[in-house]
Amino acid sequence: MTAFNMLLFDGFETLDAFGPAEIIGKLATMYSLKYFSCNGGIVTGSKNIQVLTRPFQEIKAGGIVLKPGGMGTRKHIDDAGFIHKLTAAADAAAFVLTVCTGSALLAKTNLLNNRQATSNKKAFDWVQSVNEAVIWVKHARWVVDGRFYTSSGVSAGMDMTLGFISDLHGQNIAQNVADTIEYIWNSDKNLDPFSF
Amino acid sequence: MTAFNMLLFDGFETLDAFGPAEIIGKLATMYSLKYFSCNGGIVTGSKNIQVLTRPFQEIKAGGIVLKPGGMGTRKHIDDAGFIHKLTAAADAAAFVLTVCTGSALLAKTNLLNNRQATSNKKAFDWVQSVNEAVIWVKHARWVVDGRFYTSSGVSAGMDMTLGFISDLHGQNIAQNVADTIEYIWNSDKNLDPFSF
Repeated sequence: MTAFNMLLFDGFETLDAFGPAEIIGKLATMYSLKYFSCNGGIVTGSKNIQVLTRPFQEIKAGGIVLKPGGMGTRKHIDDAGFIHKLTAAADAAAFVLTVCTGSALLAKTNLLNNRQATSNKKAFDWVQSVNEAVIWVKHARWVVDGRFYTSSGVSAGMDMTLGFISDLHGQNIAQNVADTIEYIWNSDKNLDPFSF
Repeated sequence: MTAFNMLLFDGFETLDAFGPAEIIGKLATMYSLKYFSCNGGIVTGSKNIQVLTRPFQEIKAGGIVLKPGGMGTRKHIDDAGFIHKLTAAADAAAFVLTVCTGSALLAKTNLLNNRQATSNKKAFDWVQSVNEAVIWVKHARWVVDGRFYTSSGVSAGMDMTLGFISDLHGQNIAQNVADTIEYIWNSDKNLDPFSF
């Protein structure tokens, strides 16, 4: 059983986290899904949702971490203590996934330096400015570089998570999850209708 | 400002609620989004998510209610006290939306009698058996009958919610929300790739 750890924070974008959670949750025999925040306790997401979390320090090494984006990234990007803890969590993970502007926070850790990554198309200029040592790819539904998966905005996180499942366990398992949740999966990571 | 009230319960399907929440949350000048459960307090959704809610009795008449589905429906369908409170909440609402097997719970209130409705395709036989006075439509991404919107499984709730916004506020506003969250909207309620 692999730990799949959502790294939440105040102001995270709801669907960035719960779209992928819906997918990973359908593979309950493979993945154990947990919700964390820097200090634990209740975190408030973008849609007034209040979620109970555990502190980052309880995350075990070797699992998978997913970092959503959202307006809260603008505040956290300048919080050195937060970035330090995020660096440790991402460094110890087998795979790191980000959705939307979650890739800006990950870029700030320097772990994406000289790697390809993408982000939300409406916030792209800001994300690029966070760390220009990252090879930012504008036209992509999601990007894979080694153990790092980064997706475009919000809904793209679901397509990426299915892509991640497909890469690790095969296309059939990913398609089966998509069918189960009646999701019309855009399975081509290069098909990005929102890049202008 | 219209109240948009999510009616949660233990075992609700995460994306059934938070997909539509993501969409409604983007219309923050029009809709106020709140989370309720029968008695309030912390509710545990399908993916280990724990959410803070208010009690049903605080719901004001004239708003919109959305009822997700999920495995928890199987328990709640036989809970007369729950169905009684759900009936009151749905009866007082301007519009009632359901996702997935949420339509089974709504069917149990008898408010859907002699109306068209749909549900999750994999649970369709069970949902039909709950109340055969409903005109169940198998091939539909979502169905509109008067003030009742019912959708197919999980992800279909997002398409339906965008359809609801389109019906009330116009296609442009709905498409703009879809673009903002980089969502590839299936805007045709009769296009249902999961009905076999």
